[in-house]
Amino acid sequence: MDEVRKVAEKAKLASLRLQSMSTQLRNSALNEVSFSLKRNEVAIIEANKVDLRNAEKDNLAMPLLKRLKYDHLKIEESVAQIESLIHQEDPIGKTISEMELDDGLVLDKVTTPIGVVAVVFESRPDALVQISTLCLKSGNAAILKGGSEAKETNSALARAIVEGTMKADAGFKDAVQLMSTREEVRELLDQDDLVDLVIPRGSNQLVRSIQESTRIPVLGHSAGVCHTYVDGEADLEMAVKVAFDAKCQYPAVCNAMETLLVHEDVAKTFLPRMAKKYAEANVEIRGDQRSRELIQANEATEDDWYAEYNDLILSIKIVSSLEEAVEHINKYGSHHTDAIITGNIEKAKRFMDTVDSASVLWNCSTRFADGFRYGLGAEVGISTNKTHARGPVGLEGLVIYKYRLSGKGHVVADYAGDDGKHFTHRKIK
Amino acid sequence: MDEVRKVAEKAKLASLRLQSMSTQLRNSALNEVSFSLKRNEVAIIEANKVDLRNAEKDNLAMPLLKRLKYDHLKIEESVAQIESLIHQEDPIGKTISEMELDDGLVLDKVTTPIGVVAVVFESRPDALVQISTLCLKSGNAAILKGGSEAKETNSALARAIVEGTMKADAGFKDAVQLMSTREEVRELLDQDDLVDLVIPRGSNQLVRSIQESTRIPVLGHSAGVCHTYVDGEADLEMAVKVAFDAKCQYPAVCNAMETLLVHEDVAKTFLPRMAKKYAEANVEIRGDQRSRELIQANEATEDDWYAEYNDLILSIKIVSSLEEAVEHINKYGSHHTDAIITGNIEKAKRFMDTVDSASVLWNCSTRFADGFRYGLGAEVGISTNKTHARGPVGLEGLVIYKYRLSGKGHVVADYAGDDGKHFTHRKIK
Repeated sequence: MDEVRKVAEKAKLASLRLQSMSTQLRNSALNEVSFSLKRNEVAIIEANKVDLRNAEKDNLAMPLLKRLKYDHLKIEESVAQIESLIHQEDPIGKTISEMELDDGLVLDKVTTPIGVVAVVFESRPDALVQISTLCLKSGNAAILKGGSEAKETNSALARAIVEGTMKADAGFKDAVQLMSTREEVRELLDQDDLVDLVIPRGSNQLVRSIQESTRIPVLGHSAGVCHTYVDGEADLEMAVKVAFDAKCQYPAVCNAMETLLVHEDVAKTFLPRMAKKYAEANVEIRGDQRSRELIQANEATEDDWYAEYNDLILSIKIVSSLEEAVEHINKYGSHHTDAIITGNIEKAKRFMDTVDSASVLWNCSTRFADGFRYGLGAEVGISTNKTHARGPVGLEGLVIYKYRLSGKGHVVADYAGDDGKHFTHRKIK
Repeated sequence: MDEVRKVAEKAKLASLRLQSMSTQLRNSALNEVSFSLKRNEVAIIEANKVDLRNAEKDNLAMPLLKRLKYDHLKIEESVAQIESLIHQEDPIGKTISEMELDDGLVLDKVTTPIGVVAVVFESRPDALVQISTLCLKSGNAAILKGGSEAKETNSALARAIVEGTMKADAGFKDAVQLMSTREEVRELLDQDDLVDLVIPRGSNQLVRSIQESTRIPVLGHSAGVCHTYVDGEADLEMAVKVAFDAKCQYPAVCNAMETLLVHEDVAKTFLPRMAKKYAEANVEIRGDQRSRELIQANEATEDDWYAEYNDLILSIKIVSSLEEAVEHINKYGSHHTDAIITGNIEKAKRFMDTVDSASVLWNCSTRFADGFRYGLGAEVGISTNKTHARGPVGLEGLVIYKYRLSGKGHVVADYAGDDGKHFTHRKIK
């Protein structure tokens, strides 16, 4: 498909223009995008109605229908988000460090956009606005592919966004492009010489299938198997409250708890109280042998320890030590978000040091692990990668750096050999 | 091959121990490694002699033989490097940022090791010492595979390193492991659930073949097609000196210049002088049509613009503007290192802003782009990636971060809904 190659090439050229645009120009584009969304409100809502009608015909499930809806309120939310983005500090052009290498030879390390970012998302049309404006703010060209059920809404939104950016400056041509079919995405994932980063936002299957079919770096996470460990020195009232929130506040999401680990010293007091709360919320419990001696629960199998239920189901295991809890988490978890409840600061520290996860929490709910709550502004996604960006990722995940070295005719030959010049390596910043 | 899986699993377990070791313990391990290298000097040099004899029998080329040699002087160099590494600031456990999310709920972002790093390198045994000590300093477990021609030296070095670390603490078991065959490496590249990062150090072919055969993030660069652009406002004496250094100071390496771009306004004065210097150093010139009207040169083909000669060969092209130079560099270059020679600061800025490379240089030689000269201490490699780490990479390329959130029983439910609590998001650091 030559068409897809062309889209990627156009995005690359746009990214080269974007990377030297001023903060002011990128912000004015964001401003125009927000005007354009308001100006095109009728067309966008009409397009959304078409998607909603088709989805109803296809018997889309109620929660999905709800996420698909994009109305006046959603446009207002998008506009508010863009305004907050405009006021955020420019992530581009920041000097990370500066060093004098020798007299007159100065090196600085300055943040730059990554280049071309491909974003594949499901269902929610507001994700399209969020991601493309995050890319504009950070000077990246975006290639977007939304869910087919939101096809009309996405087209209308993308048109409005492009219209806005082009009003700000003709240089934004091709800065935001929309793709419409899965075949195009498959083709796009092969363009690893043009696309610098792929961000999948959606189901585990979507993320895994993208990770497995591209050599482009993928930012995201496929699973969210999060734990809460109730230590022997936990405040049990707090433990009940936090573990209830972690499972029940919104069970369908990646930062909800899937396994509860309980120290044997408190299991007898804690578990019956906890189980009662869960029973009231219709949570199905799958327990190990020891916990089933204390509370009513189905038997947990080995598979349960790996499971991301995303539902009102919870596995429970009694452990004999903090070390056993940590070992369990590092073995079965997805390195996403894990919490300890304890009154002992030393144990909290040990847990947070040794659990190998993007977010490690003490005396609070796993549900806090998210870009908005972490104060990052809008969120690109949550990453369980061990390189580049980890945990909830905001603008800084869309940024890399370059080194700039300025001299006065300096050559390396002068520094070679035993009687060569020496570097000063004096840190300026 | 179950053996390889076991090596990776052992490395993973070691990495979990390493990530909570104190600065002091990691430094004492480095100290013991340096003692151990000195203690085992005889055995190491004997092993190296075996490799050298075999290499001579196999008619290994002289430069490779030279790089293979590991003698008393090299051990002293390695020891000095380890000592400087010990004195470097700990890259682990640094607080990058700290924020109060709400009363009593504090989030900090702290640097951590990446985990398990696989390093595949060719020829030079000192790379083994450098990489494994960089990994120890940054709390990463290392799996190493050196060139087969250095097999005996690498074994002796790895033994000495392991001996040293184990003297410091039994927890360093499996922190450094050595592999010996290519088949093992191939197998290792499939363990993407255990290995977090691959660093290839060697020929373009080695790097490319690794990039193409793994889903593990690869840190490095396959090509170094570096440019120098001599602007119309360049100090021509400086231009001759810098462009000579960039090509001739050490042509076999990735940061040597491969293409010289010259503005038409100065070509007539500059090129004949430059060509004379190159002729004295036996540099073969391949020029475009316009430059061949000014100097003697073979004809450059389209392939020449993409070529990394790593040799005393240079392609030359005359351009009509800075923009044309930038376009050429962004199209044909490898985004490694590119320089402008100009007396005009505005043009220098424009060049450095718009050339999409890891290092952009002004009035100095491309040969400066290297970890030691950039003051990073030892170098993991040079990266042309657009994520994680770019350009010369030191310790900070072996580091990621985790988020730590500490509360007092905070739950997300309290922040939900219209009358929910609000976050303060107060920046502490």
